[in-house]
Amino acid sequence: MKEFDTNIIANAAARIAPFIHRTPVLTSELVNDMAGCDLFFKCENFQKMGAFKMRGASNAILNLTEEEKAKGVVTHSSGNFAQAVALASRLVGITANIVMPTSAPQVKKNAVMAYDGIITECAPTIEARESTAALIKEQTGATLLHPSNDLDVIIGQGTSAYELLQDHPDLDHIIVPIGGGGLIAGTALAAEFHSENCTVIGAEPKEVDDAYRSLITGKIERNETINTIADGLMSGLGNNNFPIIQKHIKKIILVEEIEIIDAMKFVWERMKIIIEPSSAVAFAAVLKDKEFFENKKVGLIVSGGNVDLMKLPF
Amino acid sequence: MKEFDTNIIANAAARIAPFIHRTPVLTSELVNDMAGCDLFFKCENFQKMGAFKMRGASNAILNLTEEEKAKGVVTHSSGNFAQAVALASRLVGITANIVMPTSAPQVKKNAVMAYDGIITECAPTIEARESTAALIKEQTGATLLHPSNDLDVIIGQGTSAYELLQDHPDLDHIIVPIGGGGLIAGTALAAEFHSENCTVIGAEPKEVDDAYRSLITGKIERNETINTIADGLMSGLGNNNFPIIQKHIKKIILVEEIEIIDAMKFVWERMKIIIEPSSAVAFAAVLKDKEFFENKKVGLIVSGGNVDLMKLPF
Repeated sequence: MKEFDTNIIANAAARIAPFIHRTPVLTSELVNDMAGCDLFFKCENFQKMGAFKMRGASNAILNLTEEEKAKGVVTHSSGNFAQAVALASRLVGITANIVMPTSAPQVKKNAVMAYDGIITECAPTIEARESTAALIKEQTGATLLHPSNDLDVIIGQGTSAYELLQDHPDLDHIIVPIGGGGLIAGTALAAEFHSENCTVIGAEPKEVDDAYRSLITGKIERNETINTIADGLMSGLGNNNFPIIQKHIKKIILVEEIEIIDAMKFVWERMKIIIEPSSAVAFAAVLKDKEFFENKKVGLIVSGGNVDLMKLPF
Repeated sequence: MKEFDTNIIANAAARIAPFIHRTPVLTSELVNDMAGCDLFFKCENFQKMGAFKMRGASNAILNLTEEEKAKGVVTHSSGNFAQAVALASRLVGITANIVMPTSAPQVKKNAVMAYDGIITECAPTIEARESTAALIKEQTGATLLHPSNDLDVIIGQGTSAYELLQDHPDLDHIIVPIGGGGLIAGTALAAEFHSENCTVIGAEPKEVDDAYRSLITGKIERNETINTIADGLMSGLGNNNFPIIQKHIKKIILVEEIEIIDAMKFVWERMKIIIEPSSAVAFAAVLKDKEFFENKKVGLIVSGGNVDLMKLPF
């Protein structure tokens, strides 16, 4: 596994600072009472374009050479990373080609278009996404940015936990939803370099438990089906983030679909913030394993708030 | 009109500080671009029990004598003030009798019960509310707290604008939804005592435009019908708050129901915060009169976030 400079997350945080929001950390006595621990919600739902992905996209784009910038970037994403690359590209002044599955929520497609991203639709499979993106790369010379396996993206995603640990250095745990693995890998690096004893816990829908199984078998497992409401967590791990996850993540909590929906509704009702299902997976995991978190200080990365209000699950 | 001590809002802020949250002020570039002015959202939706009413209720209850506290309090409210009195009473350790109309959202009734409030239901008219509350007062000796016309309540509500002006002393305007008139009257006092030139603007649904008409005729007008989605804005002005409103409020903007719903959805989608329809009235008013607010710094009191997620208007 690659050895990282211990300043790599802090450097990324400084690099992307002008392009992102330093998001607030919210707490709620009611929620703490219910969870039985002290929860610190790092609100990436208030991030630009509504999700943490703005961090990784900005870091990767700012690290391109001038020659690379001139040819633009291409990515494939079910939603949030697409918006992030489109917005970060516009801020930096480069072209963004976005491959999106036909199943992506319309609200996310609209947002990409609003940020001047060029959308190419493809079938809702990981193979179709990758081959379409490869084709665009071949045709344009654009740099392919992987939503969760690009090292600059992973490092950028770690800046959320870096900020959270600056605000609350005494966290016992940070819980993070696992989709493609970029957020949890970046968070693990942030906790390694910027905390004493904070451990990072993963949360995953049982319906797409590939990371959970991957840790058991020691190799990257795939999901046969993706029947989850957490549309941001359908992707699989990659060869760059998996070794980091294997090294640092000792526990992944699986949650049922109904638990995700209940957790989402609870946070909306009690905290008055809009979190997307993928974020609710992390909160559902805390409720699922109350004993483990009892009386601990727990950071929770609220990954995003991009929800189609016309298609709510409750 | 009563003359107020210029420290009255600041004193209330100090008194209630241990019982409330100092709520954050949120901004959004996207929202500013759309509105054409710099908006500062004072998030009382993140207040305890989810609305600014916690401020006025706490101030009024903390000002009771020990003898009064022993007999408890009684109030009538369509929702948020009910929760506020119940919660503030529990924190102070007194009995709260709450008269609620049968039309009040179940989510609000549940919350009152969760705070140990004793609910008495009545017909959804202001007359039924008042007579039921009077009966309970007679039977128990409880102090009647009016949701919007009690002076201690009015002064407590002003502490939100007081905090907002501490954070942003250079606001040109603060816009506030008008229901019973307590919030705007308290906000007017805060702006008078704690700003140089900040003027307070009212926002009202056209369907319940009693305050707008009252300012024109110079006497308290009533609503014949209350066909608005803004369930917190159905009440009428009172003899204590109307003189304050007459003296300080020079402009009330009326908005249509569809404008309220669109404004609410826009804030949910773009800012990822849950605001109730009454709060959306203030944002809708800014969009309705863009010329007036153009390039100004505008504070907006997000009055609350208590919405029944099972009955969304979009």
